[in-house]
Amino acid sequence: MRELFQQELHEVQDRLVEIAQLVVDAITDAVEAFNKSDVTLAESVIVRDNKIDDAVVALDELAIAILARQAPVAKDLRIVVSALRISASLERMGDMAEHLAQLARYRFPEKVVPKTIRPIFKEMGVLDIELAKMLVVLLKTEDVEIAEKIRDEDDKVDALHLSVFETVLSDSWSQGTETTVDATLASRYLERFADHAVSIAKKMMYLATGEWNPPKH
Amino acid sequence: MRELFQQELHEVQDRLVEIAQLVVDAITDAVEAFNKSDVTLAESVIVRDNKIDDAVVALDELAIAILARQAPVAKDLRIVVSALRISASLERMGDMAEHLAQLARYRFPEKVVPKTIRPIFKEMGVLDIELAKMLVVLLKTEDVEIAEKIRDEDDKVDALHLSVFETVLSDSWSQGTETTVDATLASRYLERFADHAVSIAKKMMYLATGEWNPPKH
Repeated sequence: MRELFQQELHEVQDRLVEIAQLVVDAITDAVEAFNKSDVTLAESVIVRDNKIDDAVVALDELAIAILARQAPVAKDLRIVVSALRISASLERMGDMAEHLAQLARYRFPEKVVPKTIRPIFKEMGVLDIELAKMLVVLLKTEDVEIAEKIRDEDDKVDALHLSVFETVLSDSWSQGTETTVDATLASRYLERFADHAVSIAKKMMYLATGEWNPPKH
Repeated sequence: MRELFQQELHEVQDRLVEIAQLVVDAITDAVEAFNKSDVTLAESVIVRDNKIDDAVVALDELAIAILARQAPVAKDLRIVVSALRISASLERMGDMAEHLAQLARYRFPEKVVPKTIRPIFKEMGVLDIELAKMLVVLLKTEDVEIAEKIRDEDDKVDALHLSVFETVLSDSWSQGTETTVDATLASRYLERFADHAVSIAKKMMYLATGEWNPPKH
């Protein structure tokens, strides 16, 4: 019984890592589809989002079954509760990747944002992909130092998100309304993606420490 | 022991209703601040968001304590797990109200969106407030018919959200970039607010039925 329980806990953690890997793939392809106006890749991201959603539902069912059958306590309970909370954030990260891919598909064969502002989006994309990869490592290792790095990366994404607005609102911005709307939404999706990574990092801190809001150093 | 347990479960449900009521207040005031460019009210919404966040953390701690001490099963377990998931959505609804209030504060003494498009936002605001009020009733009564109504209302919000984009992208739109950005973001916040209401309705269906994705009729 005890051995089965430990197996199930490992299963929960393995599945979280698998879903995080699906999110890495989704954001990697969404960013490339967005940057290169690749409609096939965009459609692939959109189709694959269901996989992430299904994996999240299945993981949640497993977590609830474990709560019901095993009545875990202490660290074991934190693993299961954290899984429920982290899976919700991973699902939303998948949604953000999907939204970005949808923008790429709508605007095909045009690129979503104009040349002048593209470097900012490229940098945000690179950071979001890095963040997703860090989450995979964090979920595997529970290394809280990675959680700190995730916060730092998110600060960079926030700064880039602000600079998108500065560019769009500057006198030199001569783009039409459609482009303004797309740039606003794309930037928001990339920023929210990073926010969810921070949110997962916090939940992992809870898993490691038992504290919801560990003090920032 | 059993009596204490039942008391604690009631406490969980009461607290969810309280938080939902805070969200009703937040969206009601945020919509009014947005429509009337009321900076004092906007600031009140922004300040009060911490209250919602704190109440959510406290509720989550209670839910986890119950899982640890009582090892609930069946419906009791679903109450506790649902509370954890619903509290996260309520927190995000509070954030959306806060974001709307922030737009009102930034643009003060101007209104955020121009006259032509204001009726659409007013209608979205009315629907969001209604949705939040329905959630309070749903959390109190577990009446799944309300869950259906919430989905219908969300469809209306989605249609209005689309009509914001249609207006902004039409030839008759003569507003500057700042207004376009603000209208895009405000519409997105109002739409996401409604999405979270649907998400909570689904979680209440799970609570009532034990099924994650009950078929739509």
